[in-house]
Amino acid sequence: MATAPSVSYSMTVRLELPAGGSSVSQITTVVESAGGHVTALDVTASGHERLRIDVTIAATSTDHAAAIVRQLGEIEGVSLGKVSDRTFLMHLGGKIEMSSKHPIRNRDDLSMIYTPGVARVCTQIAENPEDARRLTIKRNSVAVVTDGSAVLGLGNIGPMAALPVMEGKAALFKRFAGIDAWPICLDTQDTDAIVEIVKAMAPGFAGINLEDISAPRCFEIEERLREALDIPVFHDDQHGTAIVVLAALHNALRVVGKDIGDVRVVMSGAGAAGTAILKLLLAAGVKHAVVADIHGVVHAERADLKDADSGSALRWIADNTNPEGVTGTLKEAVVGADVFIGVSAPNVLGGEDVAAMADGAIVFALANPDPEIEPTVARQTAAVVATGRSDFPNQINNVLVFPGVFRGLLDAHSRTVNDAMMLAAARALADVVGEEELNANYIIPSVFNEKVSGAVAGAVREAARAATGS
Amino acid sequence: MATAPSVSYSMTVRLELPAGGSSVSQITTVVESAGGHVTALDVTASGHERLRIDVTIAATSTDHAAAIVRQLGEIEGVSLGKVSDRTFLMHLGGKIEMSSKHPIRNRDDLSMIYTPGVARVCTQIAENPEDARRLTIKRNSVAVVTDGSAVLGLGNIGPMAALPVMEGKAALFKRFAGIDAWPICLDTQDTDAIVEIVKAMAPGFAGINLEDISAPRCFEIEERLREALDIPVFHDDQHGTAIVVLAALHNALRVVGKDIGDVRVVMSGAGAAGTAILKLLLAAGVKHAVVADIHGVVHAERADLKDADSGSALRWIADNTNPEGVTGTLKEAVVGADVFIGVSAPNVLGGEDVAAMADGAIVFALANPDPEIEPTVARQTAAVVATGRSDFPNQINNVLVFPGVFRGLLDAHSRTVNDAMMLAAARALADVVGEEELNANYIIPSVFNEKVSGAVAGAVREAARAATGS
Repeated sequence: MATAPSVSYSMTVRLELPAGGSSVSQITTVVESAGGHVTALDVTASGHERLRIDVTIAATSTDHAAAIVRQLGEIEGVSLGKVSDRTFLMHLGGKIEMSSKHPIRNRDDLSMIYTPGVARVCTQIAENPEDARRLTIKRNSVAVVTDGSAVLGLGNIGPMAALPVMEGKAALFKRFAGIDAWPICLDTQDTDAIVEIVKAMAPGFAGINLEDISAPRCFEIEERLREALDIPVFHDDQHGTAIVVLAALHNALRVVGKDIGDVRVVMSGAGAAGTAILKLLLAAGVKHAVVADIHGVVHAERADLKDADSGSALRWIADNTNPEGVTGTLKEAVVGADVFIGVSAPNVLGGEDVAAMADGAIVFALANPDPEIEPTVARQTAAVVATGRSDFPNQINNVLVFPGVFRGLLDAHSRTVNDAMMLAAARALADVVGEEELNANYIIPSVFNEKVSGAVAGAVREAARAATGS
Repeated sequence: MATAPSVSYSMTVRLELPAGGSSVSQITTVVESAGGHVTALDVTASGHERLRIDVTIAATSTDHAAAIVRQLGEIEGVSLGKVSDRTFLMHLGGKIEMSSKHPIRNRDDLSMIYTPGVARVCTQIAENPEDARRLTIKRNSVAVVTDGSAVLGLGNIGPMAALPVMEGKAALFKRFAGIDAWPICLDTQDTDAIVEIVKAMAPGFAGINLEDISAPRCFEIEERLREALDIPVFHDDQHGTAIVVLAALHNALRVVGKDIGDVRVVMSGAGAAGTAILKLLLAAGVKHAVVADIHGVVHAERADLKDADSGSALRWIADNTNPEGVTGTLKEAVVGADVFIGVSAPNVLGGEDVAAMADGAIVFALANPDPEIEPTVARQTAAVVATGRSDFPNQINNVLVFPGVFRGLLDAHSRTVNDAMMLAAARALADVVGEEELNANYIIPSVFNEKVSGAVAGAVREAARAATGS
């Protein structure tokens, strides 16, 4: 599937060229005919003989960008200068910073912020630990913890290479929910070690956001941390995705006029996200779910499952889905299904498979960047289609939920995060799309919709307070 | 020793009183006669009958402040309103925050700061790990790590109660050196666990500042981390103090005209700070050093040392000091000494002990808040006196060095911190005091002296570059 030129492959090229000739007019032509977009063109110096122009170009890939630059250099009279990559420029020196809320101008400031005045605040917290949420950053801080084992679609690139993602996540926490998050990139992929480390560093944080940790370790790490800690632990790749999917499903079902308890749901993918989506769908009232992985439909009698560890995620799926005992392939399972949710691999379905689904079919093809089925093909017969991509309608994007979820948890001083809170978050997100706005191409709001974070936070806060009876 | 009223025990009291009477004029009299200071007096509302006044008062302690407020309430016609503690007000919600360096206004920003653009930056770092120092916060970030076992003079108050100090430290890192530090408060005091945790979290940081970890665990933790990590590890309570003491000693020796290789130094205290000071003094050329602890002068034949673990700090002291084999008490040892450095307990020396030191005696009495000898008494016979307190001349304050030391280490991309760098830092700090400024009451600059951080950073950077040959 061809992708459009994107700002994430965007660079600024400095060109010098004759002031009088036709070469200026050729620049845009060359870029456009090579498949790029000119997004800015600034004359940065001009003389009688020569012009200096900074051209900003969006391309579809790094190679594409390099090819466009090469062609610009071949224009008669043009000489190429510095090429700056806009994405890399934004990353120089890191994307986040720490700052002091108070100026430190003189000794009086110093003696209140630091010694000796700070000692009284420490004593107060030692005597009343709950005051840490009033008198320290713990009130508003979240650790974004990764081991770099499953970063984006890049795989196991390690903790240091994962840092730009964690910084970005921290920046989003602040932008959308005013939360102070800090990246913690761990140089170990040992489950026990990660659990011990996160337990130990919990006193300074009000929540733990696990990020890009590979399955099945992520399940055990989260479960053990939730049991051990008195602050909420949330693996965004699982639960963030699950909440957005459920919100989108709520609204898609409104569009097609079906009830969540009646629909047959077929899922492709039994990894971290798939398992979490499944569990939340069941908690939301889905009664007919079938999951397929690379070996076909998951059922209790499948050869590789008979000996599976009783605590394994796949075993859990076998025990809690597929009450009708469906067997066979994914393609067989989707025949007549109402809902398809893919969190697996590109192109596992064709147009004929979607056409074989029930009337008013809902297709969420979330593999990124290449979905389980090309969305334009799916849309030929499906009533509602959503993807993980930003260049189609109905993008399933975690940014819609993790900031608001944590905002609600922090505001409620919640010690945990549970299904009731996540169901409330999904319902609140769905309800941001008003009855008069709802249609097949708008089942989920934009991440820049200003109502989203507050709505999700409010719902989670109320659910968390209800849980503690406060 | 009476302490002066301080802003660190400062509160604002709201009073209502008759507009016409003499009660306004009594406020200042009552506060001053109770030993407090009025630092601000604002009329916040006025009518024909009544005035509302906010009075800010500095006291010497919490009890003292409460007593003053009580006396204000007893003035004829005055009614007490809300009492606000300025130090606690500054701590509400924590003293630091995280922020994004770039605005996230639209999808273009999002796609460069986060997915999909960030993936290219991750890939770049996975292929060239050194680029993490160019493209991430690692370039400028320091973890401030504590286990809460030896916080200020408060002792083992635990990790959460230590957080206000660590936040303050982070704020100072930014204020004085532009460094992004984040507090990591560990809920374990197990040496092995702390070493493993800090090792694991190192990828996201360019340096580790250990803080308020009790001796002797702090020695082993630092040593093992230095061996394991490729970023500098610096226990500020040890080395920060040592560098400032050495800088102050350089200048005190200039005042009295003695050479560091000739003087007899007697130290009181063999804890974390004492041991680090001693080691740095020896590295700086001190040849005659004697250390006393609570059991008297440390020497190889002392009963408790014969069986001491060969790796212990006390054993190291016995093996590397006291070449003359001095025995007995601290008071005996200081007779005829040129320099006394105390990092121990209040009032271990009297005026007669300082009088028995050599001519041109130098006394650094650093126990806080009550020094080893009252500075005004010491000053009767000593040529130079320094303390850890802010209400006497010559304050030995770590804030003078840790920001600049880390700035230099980070700028040099240093993988370590060694004696040469610390000696350079001390020399640079001493040299901030110009020949024409130097005198017995000004051997060390103010923490707000704008030259300090840059001078220390420059010296450390050069020493670090020399160490790596870069």
